Amino acid sequence: MSERQNVLIIGGGIIGHSISYYLNKSGVSAMVIDKQESGRKATRAAAGMLGVHSENAQANVFYKFCERSRELYQSLSQELFRLTSINIGLSRTGMIEVALCEEEKNKLRDKKAFFPELEWLEGEKLSEKIPSLNGSGAVGLHMEKDGHVEPTHVCEAFKRAALHFGGKLIEDHSVWGIEKNEQGYSIQLGNETLLVDRVVVAAGAESGPWFEATGLVDPMVPTKGEYISIKPKKNIWDETLFFRDFYIVPKPDGRCVIGATTKPYDRGHFPTAGGLSELLNHVFSVFPTLQSEPLQDCGAGIRPGTKDGFPIIGEHPTMAGLYFATGHYRNGVLLAPATGELMKDLILDKKVDSSITGLLSPNRLVRKGEHSYEHSN
Amino acid sequence: MSERQNVLIIGGGIIGHSISYYLNKSGVSAMVIDKQESGRKATRAAAGMLGVHSENAQANVFYKFCERSRELYQSLSQELFRLTSINIGLSRTGMIEVALCEEEKNKLRDKKAFFPELEWLEGEKLSEKIPSLNGSGAVGLHMEKDGHVEPTHVCEAFKRAALHFGGKLIEDHSVWGIEKNEQGYSIQLGNETLLVDRVVVAAGAESGPWFEATGLVDPMVPTKGEYISIKPKKNIWDETLFFRDFYIVPKPDGRCVIGATTKPYDRGHFPTAGGLSELLNHVFSVFPTLQSEPLQDCGAGIRPGTKDGFPIIGEHPTMAGLYFATGHYRNGVLLAPATGELMKDLILDKKVDSSITGLLSPNRLVRKGEHSYEHSN
Amino acid sequence: MSERQNVLIIGGGIIGHSISYYLNKSGVSAMVIDKQESGRKATRAAAGMLGVHSENAQANVFYKFCERSRELYQSLSQELFRLTSINIGLSRTGMIEVALCEEEKNKLRDKKAFFPELEWLEGEKLSEKIPSLNGSGAVGLHMEKDGHVEPTHVCEAFKRAALHFGGKLIEDHSVWGIEKNEQGYSIQLGNETLLVDRVVVAAGAESGPWFEATGLVDPMVPTKGEYISIKPKKNIWDETLFFRDFYIVPKPDGRCVIGATTKPYDRGHFPTAGGLSELLNHVFSVFPTLQSEPLQDCGAGIRPGTKDGFPIIGEHPTMAGLYFATGHYRNGVLLAPATGELMKDLILDKKVDSSITGLLSPNRLVRKGEHSYEHSN
Amino acid sequence: MSERQNVLIIGGGIIGHSISYYLNKSGVSAMVIDKQESGRKATRAAAGMLGVHSENAQANVFYKFCERSRELYQSLSQELFRLTSINIGLSRTGMIEVALCEEEKNKLRDKKAFFPELEWLEGEKLSEKIPSLNGSGAVGLHMEKDGHVEPTHVCEAFKRAALHFGGKLIEDHSVWGIEKNEQGYSIQLGNETLLVDRVVVAAGAESGPWFEATGLVDPMVPTKGEYISIKPKKNIWDETLFFRDFYIVPKPDGRCVIGATTKPYDRGHFPTAGGLSELLNHVFSVFPTLQSEPLQDCGAGIRPGTKDGFPIIGEHPTMAGLYFATGHYRNGVLLAPATGELMKDLILDKKVDSSITGLLSPNRLVRKGEHSYEHSN
Repeated sequence: MSERQNVLIIGGGIIGHSISYYLNKSGVSAMVIDKQESGRKATRAAAGMLGVHSENAQANVFYKFCERSRELYQSLSQELFRLTSINIGLSRTGMIEVALCEEEKNKLRDKKAFFPELEWLEGEKLSEKIPSLNGSGAVGLHMEKDGHVEPTHVCEAFKRAALHFGGKLIEDHSVWGIEKNEQGYSIQLGNETLLVDRVVVAAGAESGPWFEATGLVDPMVPTKGEYISIKPKKNIWDETLFFRDFYIVPKPDGRCVIGATTKPYDRGHFPTAGGLSELLNHVFSVFPTLQSEPLQDCGAGIRPGTKDGFPIIGEHPTMAGLYFATGHYRNGVLLAPATGELMKDLILDKKVDSSITGLLSPNRLVRKGEHSYEHSN
Repeated sequence: MSERQNVLIIGGGIIGHSISYYLNKSGVSAMVIDKQESGRKATRAAAGMLGVHSENAQANVFYKFCERSRELYQSLSQELFRLTSINIGLSRTGMIEVALCEEEKNKLRDKKAFFPELEWLEGEKLSEKIPSLNGSGAVGLHMEKDGHVEPTHVCEAFKRAALHFGGKLIEDHSVWGIEKNEQGYSIQLGNETLLVDRVVVAAGAESGPWFEATGLVDPMVPTKGEYISIKPKKNIWDETLFFRDFYIVPKPDGRCVIGATTKPYDRGHFPTAGGLSELLNHVFSVFPTLQSEPLQDCGAGIRPGTKDGFPIIGEHPTMAGLYFATGHYRNGVLLAPATGELMKDLILDKKVDSSITGLLSPNRLVRKGEHSYEHSN
Repeated sequence: MSERQNVLIIGGGIIGHSISYYLNKSGVSAMVIDKQESGRKATRAAAGMLGVHSENAQANVFYKFCERSRELYQSLSQELFRLTSINIGLSRTGMIEVALCEEEKNKLRDKKAFFPELEWLEGEKLSEKIPSLNGSGAVGLHMEKDGHVEPTHVCEAFKRAALHFGGKLIEDHSVWGIEKNEQGYSIQLGNETLLVDRVVVAAGAESGPWFEATGLVDPMVPTKGEYISIKPKKNIWDETLFFRDFYIVPKPDGRCVIGATTKPYDRGHFPTAGGLSELLNHVFSVFPTLQSEPLQDCGAGIRPGTKDGFPIIGEHPTMAGLYFATGHYRNGVLLAPATGELMKDLILDKKVDSSITGLLSPNRLVRKGEHSYEHSN
Repeated sequence: MSERQNVLIIGGGIIGHSISYYLNKSGVSAMVIDKQESGRKATRAAAGMLGVHSENAQANVFYKFCERSRELYQSLSQELFRLTSINIGLSRTGMIEVALCEEEKNKLRDKKAFFPELEWLEGEKLSEKIPSLNGSGAVGLHMEKDGHVEPTHVCEAFKRAALHFGGKLIEDHSVWGIEKNEQGYSIQLGNETLLVDRVVVAAGAESGPWFEATGLVDPMVPTKGEYISIKPKKNIWDETLFFRDFYIVPKPDGRCVIGATTKPYDRGHFPTAGGLSELLNHVFSVFPTLQSEPLQDCGAGIRPGTKDGFPIIGEHPTMAGLYFATGHYRNGVLLAPATGELMKDLILDKKVDSSITGLLSPNRLVRKGEHSYEHSN
């Protein structure tokens, strides 16, 4: 791709701005368009866990993609601060996945077998780490390299760093249609038309229609998640805790974010009374002492889930120059750096790891019976 | 009391401003002092129910005081709007007290016997009024004259109407001490001193030390109450509903305020995670369909409870010119008009109903063994 | 139109819900769809003035449409309360348009000539009404029947009353395309398709692409307006005041809403520092005493302006069953009732006043030179 | 002081919690009492500048106290994170003091003479650092070691670290009186009485009455300051900028906090419309491009100013065991660590630098004519 080419990225969440950052830094002129304000949807509702191990049961291809992304945060933290004075809140205080019943314990033992470097915690060792835990017999797996970031800070920092490298941003504008022509794509924006070489759809839970409109199967499963946060009067533990029914992320301002419900195909923008009550009942069964702590806030976000559980990252099977980078479900914050880097490499025709691009390619969304792509899955 | 006299009212809640309104309107110059902004404590946390019948089991002296106060709101609504352009949100859509178990039903039957004019609801009659109620066998008592107001609007309107009649207001100042002298009272306010003829303590849950400091028994039981509000997508019922463990007040903007927990001697300014969870669990057991509705906000307030359950309204037994108007527990909004009117009559030496002044007088707080007041209780 | 027919209304602002209310009440099944939560865009940012006279210089056709709408609010206020328990905050405290310089005074004199029933205020008469006005020589025109409502309450009440009459509502869903077929319209909603008989575009400032997509000239001029509100410590005046550069609306909770800047083609969702500063500088030049009052909040909304200054209400010139009800600029709240009533009459083929339907018809948007439609204007 | 002794600290702002942290860490049992929630008054309103050079014109005793405090933040940042997982947001991106007119430039030249290590910026050097500055001829002084912290995070971290070391905290309780007795002090708290060995008054702008009540001259000048924050769409500069009429602090989340007005003896809790307008007019005269940026929030705080401009830190001249640590005006955040350390040393009878304790001692508040202290000023 020549330098005069340019890329339009549809969607100003953490994924879109990460792609814009990597592209503009590499000399490709990229512009992000968002229908409202950047970083206000799933990005804002995310707790920011970098849960490489909580999100993976085995050290497979996808695990390595997650791990790569977590490692990228290490250098990004400094570089983004240097470029933008924004502190992304990277914290590597570790995570502990806790199992309470036999079934969960068996799963955790399997995970320990796959990741022998993780530390097994039980008995006193566990209760020393999490003194207030109400569950004799609980066991835990300590993932000391995992941690969390502040999603809205990361998104704002990517956005500003991209602008620093010459990127562009249009907020408060919807894309009303895209059309392929000889040179690239023509984009209809209210009463203007933009001509660009390439388009990346990074529209999170609202990406579905772009698949339909370009002849693919819509893989999206918009999935509402609700969270609450409390602000304990004193520090209780340092690590992010991960249970089957909820997680707790201690944030750098003293809040603990507790998430999250899972409501497939629910696009509602609001947290429900029942969802929050369900979360609280789960939490109190394990941490009864949290009942006396102040509730701080609550919210909801729509995660961009997919039918097969994997993101869609790559070029459209038949429309050259149209890319997808969506479907990150609850791993959008974790995977933003690796997704941005990968998209930049794909657009610049750099050599990429074919095992991960194969796994995530939109080729798996070609409609059955449309023979030419049938065996490309 | 001559017109040149003036009154200082300590506490800028709904009670303090009501007293100021009635005094200034009658030509007595009254000034309210609040340590922060007016109307931000119990007044702001109140749901605004005018629950004459839900708060009383019999048509006794206190009931009549409540009823008088509710009736005063009728004319106040228009007068305050005329004077201040503030709409106090008076709504007389009625209340229904609902009984679910036998014990509650017996109490409700007793109440019906005392108030034969109230309508008994059961079976279809009840489910027509409250279609979503999940409780076969429930019975209800319909109090059609009761309703609710917007407490912060009432407080703001009293405040502005008092100013209109020449009243004064000092916010953001604490009273550091009061001293009786020959002419009246000397009040220390940071680095100023005020001289006034009379003082009214209307400091809500923070009134306690004023009793102690003037030689009386401290009757106050500060009692935290927590509430949440949800905003159902459609209208479900019109009436305020009153259950043993919670109430629901439909507000004029479409929210339903659900209250309230009861935590004696808890002065905490924040709603706890456990308190809200407890409320939600109560509500969902009766209205399971509310689980899918959006949660709007939550909060907490400290009610000025008292040991014998009645407000303290009247003059200090030994310090002439010092009055109390506090201890309204959860009836501060309901009783604000009648309290203001009564205090005005007491200060102007008007004839008042001795049955109510006897019941509420601070004389009952004289320390035992201090013989002169022993039998005045 | 037979009763089995149904109508889809695109846009859940005050206009869309008013139409839904009038249709459902008349037995036509109507459904509102909004891409996010109802009533959050221009409706939420509106001050709610019912400025029949401030918005019109002469008693012409449009004036009468405005007046009709204001009068409808009178009965709606009670009916909506009865149906939904929501108080729409109708206040008829009057408006005063104030002229400071000669040019403005001349315009005001002309207006007085057209509307002789309005009261002319100058000298003491004016300063009695607005004591704090810093402008000797100012004159005013008193419009005592005008007033204001609470826009979000009106919208919520229309929404719930429509649901009461069997209406439907889908929030958090975007319309991705509409297609005319033999029976009516097919609507693509994410991964579903709806079939409806008729469609009404009531999408406010985002209506533009629907004109383009259906072959018409896009008439929309999205125009950002910013506002602030302050909460004076005491009541200053009762009327809404209307100046050349700003207006002040006293709200029923004691706030004064001060609006509004005018930024054509600015779709930004946020209030700018410069816009608010400009407003404050205008206000303080006339009311210097407001400088010491507390600032409460601020915001911005995008008004659906149009190129010729009039709303677009009526059926598409060539696509039968497709209607527009948009372009109300800053009169959306005022005109919501009359627009709902008119759309209901159009859809039910009732007799309507052709002078107003002629003025507002989308026929004026047919592209010139596309001869087949040239004479349909 | 023996280890069984204990200290009550009145006031839960950043000063009170810092003292509690240093004391508890040293084995002295200290308890903080706050009348509401910790860290909500001046601490919350502070921008968090560590302006050692902007606050001092010469390298004198007070300058060294400021410098010491700034240096303490370096190690505190890590230690507090280790103890509490709270990130205090320490940023050492430097400050630039800018002079626009001749008078300001002369002062800045004097400062440069006193602090030769600071970098002088003019012409291109300055406009490179601050490209958007609208002021030809402006000069600047670059203080590269200064920076800022997040005041509420620092306060919360001190609070939790103190609790970690066994400290105690009572919120939502007012102190109604203190009385000296043989062993120490008896403290009246609503209906309880506490007995403590020593008392520290760290009540910020509300400290005044404690001086009066203990026979000293009240030195306090409560001084309201108002601020606004905007969130520029892109990064403009990294340093904190300091002008005569305002400052701008870039925060780690992308906001720029602009402060602050100065209103002596104004205790109002709210930002005024006029105060914010004044600030904005100052800012726009230097940075006109900021007019188009979004306004984020605004607020007000009451700074604990003093008549001679210096804090009051030290023991009461006649009441042994009663200490003051207040009057930090706008340097409370900067001086919190050094104040905590100094108070700890005073209470533990450690050797302290008598030049600074002499400067800040409450001895200067002895009433004239009360001869025994006359020459101790």
